[in-house]
Amino acid sequence: MFTILKKIENLTVTIVGLGVIGAAFAQSFKEMGIKTVYGIDIDEETIKKAEEKNMINKGFLETREPLEKSDFVVITLYPNLMKSFFVNNINYFKENAIITDVVGIKEKIIKDIDPIIEKSGRNIDFIFGHPMAGREKRGIDFADNRVFKDANYIIIKDEKNKKENLELLSEIVKRMGFKKVSFLTAQEHDEIIAFTSQLTHAIAVSLVNSDSEKYDTNRFIGDSYRDLTRIAKINEDLWAELFMGNKKNLLKMIQQFERELDVIKDALNNNDLGTLKEKFIISTKRREKID
Amino acid sequence: MFTILKKIENLTVTIVGLGVIGAAFAQSFKEMGIKTVYGIDIDEETIKKAEEKNMINKGFLETREPLEKSDFVVITLYPNLMKSFFVNNINYFKENAIITDVVGIKEKIIKDIDPIIEKSGRNIDFIFGHPMAGREKRGIDFADNRVFKDANYIIIKDEKNKKENLELLSEIVKRMGFKKVSFLTAQEHDEIIAFTSQLTHAIAVSLVNSDSEKYDTNRFIGDSYRDLTRIAKINEDLWAELFMGNKKNLLKMIQQFERELDVIKDALNNNDLGTLKEKFIISTKRREKID
Repeated sequence: MFTILKKIENLTVTIVGLGVIGAAFAQSFKEMGIKTVYGIDIDEETIKKAEEKNMINKGFLETREPLEKSDFVVITLYPNLMKSFFVNNINYFKENAIITDVVGIKEKIIKDIDPIIEKSGRNIDFIFGHPMAGREKRGIDFADNRVFKDANYIIIKDEKNKKENLELLSEIVKRMGFKKVSFLTAQEHDEIIAFTSQLTHAIAVSLVNSDSEKYDTNRFIGDSYRDLTRIAKINEDLWAELFMGNKKNLLKMIQQFERELDVIKDALNNNDLGTLKEKFIISTKRREKID
Repeated sequence: MFTILKKIENLTVTIVGLGVIGAAFAQSFKEMGIKTVYGIDIDEETIKKAEEKNMINKGFLETREPLEKSDFVVITLYPNLMKSFFVNNINYFKENAIITDVVGIKEKIIKDIDPIIEKSGRNIDFIFGHPMAGREKRGIDFADNRVFKDANYIIIKDEKNKKENLELLSEIVKRMGFKKVSFLTAQEHDEIIAFTSQLTHAIAVSLVNSDSEKYDTNRFIGDSYRDLTRIAKINEDLWAELFMGNKKNLLKMIQQFERELDVIKDALNNNDLGTLKEKFIISTKRREKID
């Protein structure tokens, strides 16, 4: 334990993208005692803020210098920026660097990135990951690493990854506050995430947008409507990409959901109180198992 | 203002049903200085608890004595118990008593209750109401009047009700912590509530029940799934009644919601990123207007 702690503290780390998630990673890295945390961003104001708030030791517009020095790199870019970032920076990574990402869909991103690494012949270890914690708001001003507390983390298991690096990432993630770290294949990840994350966003957006606005809705809501629509405040660029990049799974999950909604509709149409109660009892039991 | 305060404090009040909502009403009534708060319940244990916790001055299994003394009666029974309660107790109410309820659907309940009052010839003023605050859990042990803080309250406007009584109820409700008090017809109430309350519960239940349970879901959720499913823990008896008692409106709202979900499905199938973004921008703007 002592050795892994020492190892973590002595890592030179770079975070690519100091947005709401990237900056929260930076906060956590500083808090766990990592001595050298660099940040890369395209916005000078953001870099200045990150330095002033002591989230990073030094920020860079230019990528080469921090990447060449870093043992561990976290890329928090939008999914559609990942490929070009890799094409342009593949030769800058330090030999044996561990790299990870935070993209919410995995099959597509891995298909984009893996061939670039292979073709380059570079000896780097990319461990794909997904922290299941986020905020509706964008940008460094809203970064708050408390969102990581007790959250779930998924690491994509790939036999190419070195065992000790997987262990190191797990350890770092747990020190960030994440409670459960799971290992899945990319295909498994995308299937379960289509259900727990993308379907929920599709529902919240559709719920809000189905408001006829005949009444001043705000006067007639309780916590249920507030809870179900909180995530309808959504980063449209990011989520349009996530939806489209996982559309097969998402369409399947929407269909499964609609089938359950049909059961309720049928019960209503048939005055079938028994089926309604049965469905409510099942949902209650299932929800009680959720933290 | 002084007179209405004095008037409220000097009311003799009875709460019928000391469950999670009824007992929270009792807490609020004591807190606002009402000197005499009685409670009626079918469960002696509950009455004992309410007395011990000083939520009420005195509890009763038997209905006649407290009702005969009370200027103001709040009935917090399940919708399907309202009618028989009224048939059995209509003659016990004090002359000019103000009565209110908390049932989540209104057209049906009013159609049940109003003829009983009319037929009885009794001079009482029933003001139908709906506090939009609740808890998933049942019973006095979970009563907590903090749920009323900043919540919405709907009062059904009916020309039969006396103006000063409507004002008194509004004043009491605001002193309980409710922020916005709105006046609607029963038909308006049931339409908007089908959207903000019953549709949300239908969605949450269907979402949880559509889980294929192929994975250990708990390991792969973020706050979005937690938020969208919180109300899937549901009182099956109460909500089956509420759904069925407002089925026409609820079916309409489900249909409107499904139409919006269809737009997302079509966009996915047609690789139409533009429509997805457009829908996300609309939902974001709408959600920003919600408290």
